[in-house]
Amino acid sequence: MSDLQLIWVAMCVVLVFFMQAGFAFLEAGAARAKNSVNVLMKNYMDMCVGGLIFWAVGFGLMFGDNTTGWMGIDHFFPQRFTTVEAVKLAYQTMFAATAATIVSGAVAERMHFNAYFIFSALVTGIIYPVFGSWAWNEKGWLTKLGFIDFAGSTVVHSIGAWCALAGVMALGPRLGRYSRQGETRAIPGHNLPLVALGGFILWMGWFGFNGGSISTLEKNNLGLVLLNTHLGGCAGGVGALFFMAVRKQPVLMSATVNGSIAGLVSITAGAAYFSPFSSILVGFAGGIFYLLGVNLLDRLQLDDVVGAIAVHGFGGVWGTLAVALFPQGAFSYSTLFVQLTGVIVAFVWAFPMAFLFFKLLDAWLGVRASTLHEQRGLDYSEHFEIGYPEFQKRLDSNDN
Amino acid sequence: MSDLQLIWVAMCVVLVFFMQAGFAFLEAGAARAKNSVNVLMKNYMDMCVGGLIFWAVGFGLMFGDNTTGWMGIDHFFPQRFTTVEAVKLAYQTMFAATAATIVSGAVAERMHFNAYFIFSALVTGIIYPVFGSWAWNEKGWLTKLGFIDFAGSTVVHSIGAWCALAGVMALGPRLGRYSRQGETRAIPGHNLPLVALGGFILWMGWFGFNGGSISTLEKNNLGLVLLNTHLGGCAGGVGALFFMAVRKQPVLMSATVNGSIAGLVSITAGAAYFSPFSSILVGFAGGIFYLLGVNLLDRLQLDDVVGAIAVHGFGGVWGTLAVALFPQGAFSYSTLFVQLTGVIVAFVWAFPMAFLFFKLLDAWLGVRASTLHEQRGLDYSEHFEIGYPEFQKRLDSNDN
Amino acid sequence: MSDLQLIWVAMCVVLVFFMQAGFAFLEAGAARAKNSVNVLMKNYMDMCVGGLIFWAVGFGLMFGDNTTGWMGIDHFFPQRFTTVEAVKLAYQTMFAATAATIVSGAVAERMHFNAYFIFSALVTGIIYPVFGSWAWNEKGWLTKLGFIDFAGSTVVHSIGAWCALAGVMALGPRLGRYSRQGETRAIPGHNLPLVALGGFILWMGWFGFNGGSISTLEKNNLGLVLLNTHLGGCAGGVGALFFMAVRKQPVLMSATVNGSIAGLVSITAGAAYFSPFSSILVGFAGGIFYLLGVNLLDRLQLDDVVGAIAVHGFGGVWGTLAVALFPQGAFSYSTLFVQLTGVIVAFVWAFPMAFLFFKLLDAWLGVRASTLHEQRGLDYSEHFEIGYPEFQKRLDSNDN
Repeated sequence: MSDLQLIWVAMCVVLVFFMQAGFAFLEAGAARAKNSVNVLMKNYMDMCVGGLIFWAVGFGLMFGDNTTGWMGIDHFFPQRFTTVEAVKLAYQTMFAATAATIVSGAVAERMHFNAYFIFSALVTGIIYPVFGSWAWNEKGWLTKLGFIDFAGSTVVHSIGAWCALAGVMALGPRLGRYSRQGETRAIPGHNLPLVALGGFILWMGWFGFNGGSISTLEKNNLGLVLLNTHLGGCAGGVGALFFMAVRKQPVLMSATVNGSIAGLVSITAGAAYFSPFSSILVGFAGGIFYLLGVNLLDRLQLDDVVGAIAVHGFGGVWGTLAVALFPQGAFSYSTLFVQLTGVIVAFVWAFPMAFLFFKLLDAWLGVRASTLHEQRGLDYSEHFEIGYPEFQKRLDSNDN
Repeated sequence: MSDLQLIWVAMCVVLVFFMQAGFAFLEAGAARAKNSVNVLMKNYMDMCVGGLIFWAVGFGLMFGDNTTGWMGIDHFFPQRFTTVEAVKLAYQTMFAATAATIVSGAVAERMHFNAYFIFSALVTGIIYPVFGSWAWNEKGWLTKLGFIDFAGSTVVHSIGAWCALAGVMALGPRLGRYSRQGETRAIPGHNLPLVALGGFILWMGWFGFNGGSISTLEKNNLGLVLLNTHLGGCAGGVGALFFMAVRKQPVLMSATVNGSIAGLVSITAGAAYFSPFSSILVGFAGGIFYLLGVNLLDRLQLDDVVGAIAVHGFGGVWGTLAVALFPQGAFSYSTLFVQLTGVIVAFVWAFPMAFLFFKLLDAWLGVRASTLHEQRGLDYSEHFEIGYPEFQKRLDSNDN
Repeated sequence: MSDLQLIWVAMCVVLVFFMQAGFAFLEAGAARAKNSVNVLMKNYMDMCVGGLIFWAVGFGLMFGDNTTGWMGIDHFFPQRFTTVEAVKLAYQTMFAATAATIVSGAVAERMHFNAYFIFSALVTGIIYPVFGSWAWNEKGWLTKLGFIDFAGSTVVHSIGAWCALAGVMALGPRLGRYSRQGETRAIPGHNLPLVALGGFILWMGWFGFNGGSISTLEKNNLGLVLLNTHLGGCAGGVGALFFMAVRKQPVLMSATVNGSIAGLVSITAGAAYFSPFSSILVGFAGGIFYLLGVNLLDRLQLDDVVGAIAVHGFGGVWGTLAVALFPQGAFSYSTLFVQLTGVIVAFVWAFPMAFLFFKLLDAWLGVRASTLHEQRGLDYSEHFEIGYPEFQKRLDSNDN
């Protein structure tokens, strides 16, 4: 890595760091006011705990010497490094925290803070880095298979989404989310400007997420990566908008923002390989798959507060497969097969592992807040602090 | 462009991108809660649609081969480029979206979303890039005349403002904005912290807006550009503050933020040429011209919700003329004449064109929301989604 | 400074600039709604006034030729510079504004805007740069003594905090903050998402605050600085969280965010010298010292609205001493003594000076708002503009 690349990646560290804020506000805005502090606190802790745990064990597991292809085994608690190593560690730390924080929005409004705290550490310390050692460590077995995931549609986003899915299934839906007849009841987010803020920040961070990945400068394609990333996000937002309009549904801002994020997730696996036109198609479809994903999950009564599973899981799968479907050269079934393998392996590793952790945490600490606490809101019951004390209804009110 | 410049401009892509968020929050905070989602959605779409349209046609019109001096004619739907080209395209895409998004705040609270969506595409696809091809394409006729607009006081900000003026005139004022006696009634913005957030973000982005323009590094004046930009913003804020204080008016935060933005707009045309002291004078006057502009527009009953025309139009004109008034060498009437020509041409091109588009859109789709919808707020009537469902008054309330 | 370093520091200018927004939202969210505009306005003015004053006199005082070791005496109102000088001036301007803005949160909700405006100019124009000339000018007497403060735990943060302490003492506590029995009454912040936003933004800016300091690239330790900065923040947040949990107190989000900021303050003096493990210890302790500091100040009935003195003062002292306590080589009492000298000198210079300025301002303009104005809120009484006109209670209400 030249000094020039070093400086660029250092800037990308900052951009990807800030994605934590993007997730925090997207999720907090989409929750009810009575749970907004709890959501923010979980995101803030994803960052704090993730930073410490990934330094301690995650980085070694993911990028340490990986003779078996299944796990790194050194560089734990690293104390001394070259500047390049330190920048790489800082950059990868921000990625790890991103994977963890995808979960918080999906399980919002009903999960205990202390259980979440520990689960977050397990994602950053085990689930994410072990899969990462398969797909991003140069000696990883998926790497050797030829699996392509430029900046993490699968490695980061799908892994986070499958952990979220496990959480949603282990926790069950929020009170009143589905009627006895199985109909979905809308529980509107309390502060849509925060949702938009989250969307803008995430998008900004994504230029660092994709732009800093691998050493794009070596390939001299930094400009293309930035451009494709932007076009993917644009097309995702427009795709979601058009899909809602065509189906004569209200054109929701929240869904448009999520559509653009799904577009960004989709473009992530191949941002360095797609043409601009392919990027637009991939992002556009990503925005639509997000909406279809939300519908599917609701039909299954899987209550994901912010649509994280649809955005990061469905978007991530689509983007990873799209690398094979919009190839630089000729289409090949073997590439598609390898991509599909990576996608499936991610699910098979992350989902059961996360589900197991949730069940263990449930047995130990309990993961679901009591009905009374859920009604009053987790801000009051878990933190004795509420988001907007002058604007909110009385705390001991039991209605919605 | 050296690799070093490339990296710097790549960072500026990200900074200018984020200005979209700045506009979005400045505008949303200055609108009433019942229209906050609609404003945010329009800004988000400026970005999404602008990104796609500028890639498709805007870039070619603006920077394509321009043999006549009046319009570029190639590089449409570009698929392959060098890294330098790709970074330039990404950077210019963010500028185009900025021009478009200036409109959304001025026409807020009363314009249909679907008509706005199309108008935004026309700004990014036609109005902005065609003028850009005159002033920023090296073969453009204004370029050849010697017109100087370093980073876009006229090319971006005034063009956006004259489009906004056309919209404001085509739409008419909001219900209740002016009394029958012609007095202006204050309609306070619903969330001033969002206005401040917008101001801070815009200011941050401006370091990329001015700092990345042309290849400042070649001239070795990056530091001066950053410094002048900052001093211009500082002086704009202080100028507005002093002007309010001297006139014994309340020192409004919203006007101070807008004053600083006007200072930044003013400094934009000459940020690479002014001395720090000139920058302070230019910015200070920009803050005052903004306030005078707001008064003038209100006397004409032109209802600009966020003061965008005063900030970007008046500030832009002033800044462009200031290049001649605070020259590096000796003052020359011919330079002033050229600058004035550019300023007038911008108006003569953008205003009638935008007004025509508004009238066509009105005939086709209607541009103004119905009285009932305006009373209920566009969030409810156009998106079925409201900004703060727990804090807002009932949606079917008809009072202000 | 190479071109490469120049670009990096230019980016850090932008990052440190944005810390102003971080302070603004952290502070505004921690105040009551009725004072939110006033707090934001003060922060915005710290930036605007600070930019002008530091250019005019601060930079010369701090970095001008310093033959005595006590004060620079040239480079006032600088007009011409090399690119390197201009970038350095821009970077240092953002630091100066940071020192000033620490005060605004501590004295919130009760101090007149006009007096604050002048006080802010005195911090950026005199108090901060004069101390800076002792510790950061290469000919300063503290520099020659061997005082080490990498990026400003003392020079920026403690100086700001001691000014804040003077303000808090000169103003007295807010109405109703302490009962007659001396008990502290909680006055909750009105918008905790803004507090979190402030925390995220400050953290992001800190990568530029520490990363751009001195010319880290020369020492080839940029990566370490970024990593240590992040670990310090992470550990500060976790430290505060654990301390609250161990004491069976509610785990407040506001205190966790402040704990992470205290961790960042603590790591600032030695970010280039600590090992990662030391950084974690230093940050962790910083988070705890913040909480102890808040308790101490409340016992002394010193009403600091946002905990700025505990975060920046206590954190700054701790971080500066930690440079000696976690040395790169062998521990030496003489280093500790020098660090302690710097810490004490900062207090002995800034606190009495600031207190004197407050008393002079009080005699001239009055610093404390009237009881009626404090009850109604400074937004209404000083700006005739309120933060959330649709959500707030009536303005002429006299209750809390």
